[in-house]
Amino acid sequence: MFDLFPIHGGVCAPEGFSADGIAAGLKKEGKLDVAFVHSLFPAKVSALFTTNRFAAAPIRYFQGLGEVFDCNFVLINAKNANAMTGAEGIEDIEWLMERLKHRFPSLVNPVMSSTGVIGARLPKEKIEASLGEIVLGKKEGARAAQAIMTTDAFSKEVAFKVELPDGRSFCIGAMAKGAGMIDPAMATMLCFITTDADVPENRMKELLQKAVHTTFNAISVDGDTSTNDTVMLFSNKASGVYEEEAFLMALERVMHKLATDVARDGEGAKKLVAFEVSGAASEEEAIKAAKALTTSLLVKTAIFGEDPNWGRIASTIGSSGVECDENRLRISFGEVLVYDRGAILFDKTIEEKAASVMRQESFKIHCDLGIGRGKFTAYGCDLGYEYVKINADYRT
Amino acid sequence: MFDLFPIHGGVCAPEGFSADGIAAGLKKEGKLDVAFVHSLFPAKVSALFTTNRFAAAPIRYFQGLGEVFDCNFVLINAKNANAMTGAEGIEDIEWLMERLKHRFPSLVNPVMSSTGVIGARLPKEKIEASLGEIVLGKKEGARAAQAIMTTDAFSKEVAFKVELPDGRSFCIGAMAKGAGMIDPAMATMLCFITTDADVPENRMKELLQKAVHTTFNAISVDGDTSTNDTVMLFSNKASGVYEEEAFLMALERVMHKLATDVARDGEGAKKLVAFEVSGAASEEEAIKAAKALTTSLLVKTAIFGEDPNWGRIASTIGSSGVECDENRLRISFGEVLVYDRGAILFDKTIEEKAASVMRQESFKIHCDLGIGRGKFTAYGCDLGYEYVKINADYRT
Repeated sequence: MFDLFPIHGGVCAPEGFSADGIAAGLKKEGKLDVAFVHSLFPAKVSALFTTNRFAAAPIRYFQGLGEVFDCNFVLINAKNANAMTGAEGIEDIEWLMERLKHRFPSLVNPVMSSTGVIGARLPKEKIEASLGEIVLGKKEGARAAQAIMTTDAFSKEVAFKVELPDGRSFCIGAMAKGAGMIDPAMATMLCFITTDADVPENRMKELLQKAVHTTFNAISVDGDTSTNDTVMLFSNKASGVYEEEAFLMALERVMHKLATDVARDGEGAKKLVAFEVSGAASEEEAIKAAKALTTSLLVKTAIFGEDPNWGRIASTIGSSGVECDENRLRISFGEVLVYDRGAILFDKTIEEKAASVMRQESFKIHCDLGIGRGKFTAYGCDLGYEYVKINADYRT
Repeated sequence: MFDLFPIHGGVCAPEGFSADGIAAGLKKEGKLDVAFVHSLFPAKVSALFTTNRFAAAPIRYFQGLGEVFDCNFVLINAKNANAMTGAEGIEDIEWLMERLKHRFPSLVNPVMSSTGVIGARLPKEKIEASLGEIVLGKKEGARAAQAIMTTDAFSKEVAFKVELPDGRSFCIGAMAKGAGMIDPAMATMLCFITTDADVPENRMKELLQKAVHTTFNAISVDGDTSTNDTVMLFSNKASGVYEEEAFLMALERVMHKLATDVARDGEGAKKLVAFEVSGAASEEEAIKAAKALTTSLLVKTAIFGEDPNWGRIASTIGSSGVECDENRLRISFGEVLVYDRGAILFDKTIEEKAASVMRQESFKIHCDLGIGRGKFTAYGCDLGYEYVKINADYRT
């Protein structure tokens, strides 16, 4: 066993990592809009990216360098996704990275990550002009987390110290952005994780894949998959300590915290809902049903209206394509059972109890399909007027 | 070849069909809420139903009678879906149908169709008490179309006379409802088609399947599939005339008109958009991409905002899982090309032209994937404040 302690510092918490946010004039009013994460020690990087076929230029640039490679620096910009920009998008990154390496000769294979407008060239000159403000050793994780925000209502960071039974320890830190856009682009999710654990480089990608399955792949704000979605893990081995079970658990905790923060901070959203599906024929079927619930417009608007509309829950499961049977299905809001294998328990009393569950900021809706042992929990949010406003009225 | 003339009368236009709407007290203020369609001559019925696993009781009742069978009457009610009601839901229908046959001995295998709240018992006594108002011979198609409306902003009916080159003719008529609900239930689509063409009974289901593919299966209001979706075809052979090509064409025209009316009348929607996808690797891929566009929240809110946000269109195609390549893709709003195989044509002038296309009530967005010959057109609508209001605020 091991102990896990929340600590301050975000991506700068692990030994040897620095980060900061600077203002390059991409956002208005001198707001922070460019961030970097740097390791003072040699580090390895591995990442998982969007499945969108039109993966943005920074993703294709990263993939050109390999799966896991030496890298001690990532430059992140808001306001421009550098997506649908073709070969020029890559050239713009190469141009910037050359200037960055010229200015900071200690950088090894610097990479980029972007979020913002799709289909416009990267404002590389503006970014280049701001590189002079970068001080590599700055430990300003909170400013970095702030710089990468777009329509995020709050910045998202987390860090843990992991103590093994023999007293040795390592740290893991991370920051993320989600929410969406204020400009016409897709809602992009970016997450940067740092650790001083001595992670074997051939394990980095697989561990990321394991952890993303129940965290970032389990959330949905609007069901769309951006051209820029990225989860990036930097490991500099500075602690010299590693224990896989402990590291994976800590990685999952970090990613779970940030993923639920991203869902909670869905554009205009006020509520975080955990859709627990159990009793499915398989885990795949549980995933299918749980994700159908997170993306159903009728379910999302019912959550916004704090309406325990179990008929919409049932119908969404029925149309999700999974094996189900109305005489085996059970539906609960929190601990309030409203439908029990063919019996409609929903009366005025139960309705009021279920509605009071939904008035909370965070709650669960549980569907037991009663078929098999497959289970999965997906996280979603409500959809209200603010969502429409953010996504339709950005011009005004 | 043949000629097709629009005529009045809706479902009552074909010879020997009658219909009416009555008020059973299910809706408030004495509004019409129960409808029937009847054939004075012996008729056959065939239907296509929802793929939702929790198909409503009236659907399971119908399926218990066969695929194509003798039937000269359908009773339709609004305000209650009779879904998630188990064996009792079927018993309620049997009870009502017995009373109906007792009152009108000429009825053969009467069936039901319902739309409204999921998970509440059918108010069968109220409906039974109103059966006395039914006059079998009434030709009030418009009142029937009105009775089946829920949140529909307008009633939907259509009829054509089909004239063959030799002067013989037959008629086809139909009515539909869509839009959604004012009560907490799924947005249900119901469509009833009548014809006096001499359709061979063994062709009825296949012809319905062909016609539904490019019509009702090509529309999306909210991406949810209701427990009650139904397309029902009655044929009484009264004209003695049939020519398959002409009949199929007329059937498709009727269903296309009603399906686009349903999409146009999506809850709170103001615009009908045809998403034309061409150049896909296969028709399946074209369907996948076109449907992804109709259900993308970011695309739907951009349409509401009249924002020619081609980046969202591209990204939705990229995440739809179809084969695509940014150097082959072309995107147009109406006739305005905004992205051409890697070249971003979008400047202030093009943006204004594309925005003016989007200010129309009805327009197309065309995506040529440039990969193969697969094509498909799906129909969708915008998503604005009204949608949220209808679906979240029904209590207030």
